[in-house]
Amino acid sequence: MTSQDPQKKLKIAVVGGGLVGSLQACYMAKRGHQVELYELRDDIRTMEHVPGKSINLAMSIRGRSALREVGLEDEIIKNHGLPMEARMIHRLDGSTYQIPYGKKGQCIYSVGRRFVNEVLLNAAEKLPNVSFNFSHKLVNSDLDKGTMTFTNKSGELVEAQADLILGTDGAYSAVRKQFMKRPRFNYQQEYIPCYYLELCIPPTASGNFAMNPKCLHIWPRGSFMMIALPNQDASWTVTLFMPHDKFEALTTPEELLAFFKTHYPDAIPLIGKDRLVKDFFAIKPSGLISVKCYPHHAGKALLLGDAAHAMVPFYGQGMNCGFEDCLVLNEFLNQLGDHNLEKVLPAYTEHRHVDAHAICDLALYNFIEMRDLVNRFSFLARKRFDNTMHWLFPNWWVPLYTSVTFSRMRYHLCIENKKWQDRVRQN
Amino acid sequence: MTSQDPQKKLKIAVVGGGLVGSLQACYMAKRGHQVELYELRDDIRTMEHVPGKSINLAMSIRGRSALREVGLEDEIIKNHGLPMEARMIHRLDGSTYQIPYGKKGQCIYSVGRRFVNEVLLNAAEKLPNVSFNFSHKLVNSDLDKGTMTFTNKSGELVEAQADLILGTDGAYSAVRKQFMKRPRFNYQQEYIPCYYLELCIPPTASGNFAMNPKCLHIWPRGSFMMIALPNQDASWTVTLFMPHDKFEALTTPEELLAFFKTHYPDAIPLIGKDRLVKDFFAIKPSGLISVKCYPHHAGKALLLGDAAHAMVPFYGQGMNCGFEDCLVLNEFLNQLGDHNLEKVLPAYTEHRHVDAHAICDLALYNFIEMRDLVNRFSFLARKRFDNTMHWLFPNWWVPLYTSVTFSRMRYHLCIENKKWQDRVRQN
Repeated sequence: MTSQDPQKKLKIAVVGGGLVGSLQACYMAKRGHQVELYELRDDIRTMEHVPGKSINLAMSIRGRSALREVGLEDEIIKNHGLPMEARMIHRLDGSTYQIPYGKKGQCIYSVGRRFVNEVLLNAAEKLPNVSFNFSHKLVNSDLDKGTMTFTNKSGELVEAQADLILGTDGAYSAVRKQFMKRPRFNYQQEYIPCYYLELCIPPTASGNFAMNPKCLHIWPRGSFMMIALPNQDASWTVTLFMPHDKFEALTTPEELLAFFKTHYPDAIPLIGKDRLVKDFFAIKPSGLISVKCYPHHAGKALLLGDAAHAMVPFYGQGMNCGFEDCLVLNEFLNQLGDHNLEKVLPAYTEHRHVDAHAICDLALYNFIEMRDLVNRFSFLARKRFDNTMHWLFPNWWVPLYTSVTFSRMRYHLCIENKKWQDRVRQN
Repeated sequence: MTSQDPQKKLKIAVVGGGLVGSLQACYMAKRGHQVELYELRDDIRTMEHVPGKSINLAMSIRGRSALREVGLEDEIIKNHGLPMEARMIHRLDGSTYQIPYGKKGQCIYSVGRRFVNEVLLNAAEKLPNVSFNFSHKLVNSDLDKGTMTFTNKSGELVEAQADLILGTDGAYSAVRKQFMKRPRFNYQQEYIPCYYLELCIPPTASGNFAMNPKCLHIWPRGSFMMIALPNQDASWTVTLFMPHDKFEALTTPEELLAFFKTHYPDAIPLIGKDRLVKDFFAIKPSGLISVKCYPHHAGKALLLGDAAHAMVPFYGQGMNCGFEDCLVLNEFLNQLGDHNLEKVLPAYTEHRHVDAHAICDLALYNFIEMRDLVNRFSFLARKRFDNTMHWLFPNWWVPLYTSVTFSRMRYHLCIENKKWQDRVRQN
């Protein structure tokens, strides 16, 4: 049997068992290949607390489409997702108003990172041709040969080989570090001058949501902001975004409470003074990185998800874009064939990198919009104009947020579409 | 004696003994510090052939100012530099015309990389407080502690420590790799879709220059180009710039000669058919990388020259900018004090990174100008307009090329100045 034999199973290494890696394992196993999944951490399903990233995600059409393809949309969205139909803007005086995300009935879904990851790991585990290798740290790889060296929990070296290495190991990807050693790899990493810290609004005494759970809540304050997303247990995950010097200026409980009293007065009773102080000083603020690279493939390896395009979280598209990567790769494999990787990988890179760069840019742009523009009259006027046009001509005038969130229009075309609309409005 | 003692000598490690490193060693030694210079290669002064980079450089005012400060300008410029007053444009039909670089008397100087490097190494060696460590490869460093681990020629590990580590080890800097391991380091590397290959025009039979040596010769051809700079021995270093597919298409002597006959017919007799074929197929084309980063310092380390801002060669500012780095650092040390590094390094970064980013952008822009715009009427008309305005109002209207090449105006202000001129012309 040669490697061109269309019946031959490929050996696929998925390096990174987070959201995109565990979904990608399902995709490749369903295509009939032998999948080895390697994950740096222990099995998160056995852990009490999962360290690391933000726990809240906003799932929209791209993520849902990718889940649907492997039959997991209902389990995650219908049984678990909390629909959010609008942004709820909190003014300084505590009054609020809503800005809908799209047309009536369109919404994004608040889902928990850990829940989604566990559903995906369980789904992959059920497939007979997927094996898990937890506590495996990639230390070296020859991307041309498809060889990898890991260290396992006991510190032993583990050698492996694959026909295709899928790097799904996130913003600080170890697979991508191997790409950096090669010539002609374009790479950009940027830390934006903004940090984040997660707080929590607990359920009310009667076990209900303390705010309207059909909304993503935003407290825009110019150079900084706070947002809150609902959780299944009626609690809220609150994220404070601000420059590091603003975090550093809050060194005592008194300073913290005075800051909240000035900028987020209505949030103090919701979080609770004691809890606010305890949670705020228990953890350090985290940084936000934006990563672009080109190409996404090298030798027998391909980067997917944050490893290829980490973005700031302000468009809620990080997971959605990563999941859509799986869908796009699947489409290229359907079109060009699983045993034609030397064509599939470059074709994927050429197609996908422009969209990855576009959504990274849009996510940075939306930071300015969220923290600032939502307060401005011109922003609301534009939203109202866009929504009226979209209602009148649903296929002809699609607002930027709608095309990104409620369609699978390629990200770079979403930007071009917006530029065209800007020109039309100016004439 | 504490580290605050203004009399105390600092231990300075200069990692990288190329152009900027050897100059920087002179600067630091002249400030009275103890300098250890570490270089990956052997001593180039003992080598027959130095591998690597392009051998030709165009020295202009920034580089000269930095050399003057340590008393080396005359040795390099007066005794060795070949003045070039204009671009000599070669049309397809072999006819030529000149475009002066600046006003009458203004010129840039063609100098040899190896010669300049040797002069600087000799100057550093003469200073009693400089030690050389050749064949030392940096393998690890704790930038906060100032510790470094090298491997030497015998493969032994060599440990070192310094109060300040100056990373002057070029575009693929090993010091910068240590920066990459730290949080919040913004970094960008980009390979442009253009490669280069060096050829040679020998002296004439009578030992003279085969072309006018007062010019930098350019054969602009749209998406590709060729340039030539004069050498001391009356030969020319010719550099062919073009996309990789164009290089790859030339696989036989016949194809190469046909290509030259079509695009550079007048160069064939100058290079000589046999020599052209031999030189072209003897080496592989090299890539061109552009690097930006922020900050330029971390812990006790500071990046200078290409390590901090590798640029494409089209503005002739790579060495000039690197040498000016030494001058700028020297000015901050004068201003804030040698024993105040915790203030000097951030102040240097904040001041210098905007200029480094600006000249990287300008160098990319000049590629388009050189290969393309010099052929266009609008380019010549603008040059003529700029030169007339500059002649009339020498301090008020300074053309972009003049501000970059013949002044020490900060690079980012050169761009702002150009934008202002564009606005004035449009009104």
